Amino acid sequence: MKKKSSVPTMKDVAAEAGVALGTVSKVFNNIPVGENYRIRVEEAAKKLGYQVNSYARGMRTNKTNTIAIIMPILSHPYFSKLTECICRELDENGYSGYIAITDRNEQAETRCIRMVSQHKADGIIALTYKPDLENIGNIPFISIDRTFSGSVRCVSSDNYSGGQIAASKLIELGCRKLLFCRSGSEVPGETDKRKAGFENCCQANNIPYNSMFTDKTEHEIRDVIYSMIDSGEFDYDGIFCSTDKLLFEIRCALNSRGIRVPEDVQMIGFDGITDFWTEKPICSTIVQPVEQIARVAVHAVLNYDSEESPSLICLPVRYQAGPTTKDGI
Amino acid sequence: MKKKSSVPTMKDVAAEAGVALGTVSKVFNNIPVGENYRIRVEEAAKKLGYQVNSYARGMRTNKTNTIAIIMPILSHPYFSKLTECICRELDENGYSGYIAITDRNEQAETRCIRMVSQHKADGIIALTYKPDLENIGNIPFISIDRTFSGSVRCVSSDNYSGGQIAASKLIELGCRKLLFCRSGSEVPGETDKRKAGFENCCQANNIPYNSMFTDKTEHEIRDVIYSMIDSGEFDYDGIFCSTDKLLFEIRCALNSRGIRVPEDVQMIGFDGITDFWTEKPICSTIVQPVEQIARVAVHAVLNYDSEESPSLICLPVRYQAGPTTKDGI
Repeated sequence: MKKKSSVPTMKDVAAEAGVALGTVSKVFNNIPVGENYRIRVEEAAKKLGYQVNSYARGMRTNKTNTIAIIMPILSHPYFSKLTECICRELDENGYSGYIAITDRNEQAETRCIRMVSQHKADGIIALTYKPDLENIGNIPFISIDRTFSGSVRCVSSDNYSGGQIAASKLIELGCRKLLFCRSGSEVPGETDKRKAGFENCCQANNIPYNSMFTDKTEHEIRDVIYSMIDSGEFDYDGIFCSTDKLLFEIRCALNSRGIRVPEDVQMIGFDGITDFWTEKPICSTIVQPVEQIARVAVHAVLNYDSEESPSLICLPVRYQAGPTTKDGI
Repeated sequence: MKKKSSVPTMKDVAAEAGVALGTVSKVFNNIPVGENYRIRVEEAAKKLGYQVNSYARGMRTNKTNTIAIIMPILSHPYFSKLTECICRELDENGYSGYIAITDRNEQAETRCIRMVSQHKADGIIALTYKPDLENIGNIPFISIDRTFSGSVRCVSSDNYSGGQIAASKLIELGCRKLLFCRSGSEVPGETDKRKAGFENCCQANNIPYNSMFTDKTEHEIRDVIYSMIDSGEFDYDGIFCSTDKLLFEIRCALNSRGIRVPEDVQMIGFDGITDFWTEKPICSTIVQPVEQIARVAVHAVLNYDSEESPSLICLPVRYQAGPTTKDGI
């Protein structure tokens, strides 16, 4: 058989595969068809050298099968793990992920929204601390951890329960005066509920507590702890920290002043980060369900048009004992 | 002035901004123009509600201003840092990055290449261990760390020099019998040169050495070290490890058997990973210039058509003293 010299069309592929033109279209648009049909179409396309022109397709169907992912940073194990899970989940749904890193780049979010407006991506999954994204119109936009007062839907850990679980566990382990510590961004967000849940549980159990917020970085917080200890203000036997990293810093400060963890002070963090070197958690912690967050966020952005979508989906966290509480190994 | 009801065109934007049509085109295609022109065009576009249709643009210029990034995994600090640097560099050049994570997904690379063939991306930057990508045709494809026998161009650290520097430093610090350790993938790659440079330096200095390869994971290598020690085969006073993570594992094994680092055995790793918790390096190491690798890879993929492009670009590494050699702090 003489090879055709012209560029093959979808019709040629359908003829070669012995299927209807609609079946070919479905395969190229990632719409489910029987596995044997899909194989026949793909083999025919390969044999003929047929290539889908995604631009032409984009203009027809207005779909790009890509989702923009906005992250503040990748060199933090929680964010890199979350990004990895989102990518895997998109991939399993036949989608690719664009990635925008917003740290040190204020315009990245705006650019992402423009990309979606320009039909370069079908939606956005964002972990962002930028407060002025409330009115972004009809763009499928799923926020992680940050609720906005506008129309943005949010997926997050059940932070309130996480705070309750942490306080409850510290009380159960014998602590009688508790401290909550948080540092970093003051932008209101879902993570505020860690404090609220913690305080609620302390109040319900009549356990005295204090809550501390500092806008210092996690590293600078050591000085805050030193001055608390040196001025005699530190009389806690249990601390709940808003992140594992913050716990690490505070624990170092306590150790430097001869205060032992968990013997003198028990500590619970939040995130559930596994140490890269030892592949173990470094502290007792409230573990965020990172795989589930990714899965639900991807599902929410891909099914954005469906009605009755909740504005906030909270996913269950769990306590994991580690070396900073007396129940740890 | 009565608002036009029709969709604004580039001509309308040019008239509104009081600039030539060519200037508008340059701004929308990220071609440098004077800053005040750019601002006038952007303000006019905003005022008129003009939106670039990237699909129409893609068909005209055949450019998408996106590059696909292929990484094996993100939950490893070297890969996440490299990805972050590539994203930042792309962003500074007016490009976005698609991301594909290949671990646990054999098809991801093939899919990326298809994306570029379908004009969904302009090129690929890949850190891949897949050996069958040698004949990918004319696609702008920059490999990191892995040379292919085909037409793929590669950017990597100067691994050979890194091996030489490590051996030379161990000798300078008094070591008299050296060991090189590598684990993981057996796919030939640029990182093989770490061993070659190390051996070259040992030979030049008449220092006895051994080289060890194991296909075990970095964690499983502990057992290999135990049996070497227990059978009396371990008589080294200096070890060069192909990664910092491998060094960590071997150091743990040595410590478990009462061998002190750096007093009894000095160790140098490769990568230069900063520990997430302490924000310090955990060992003496050969630091990879990760920012520079990202910058050069992005430049290479964006200027792929230029002639005289080298097939391999090696970037300078440096030694950094840490707690596993006697010169460390």
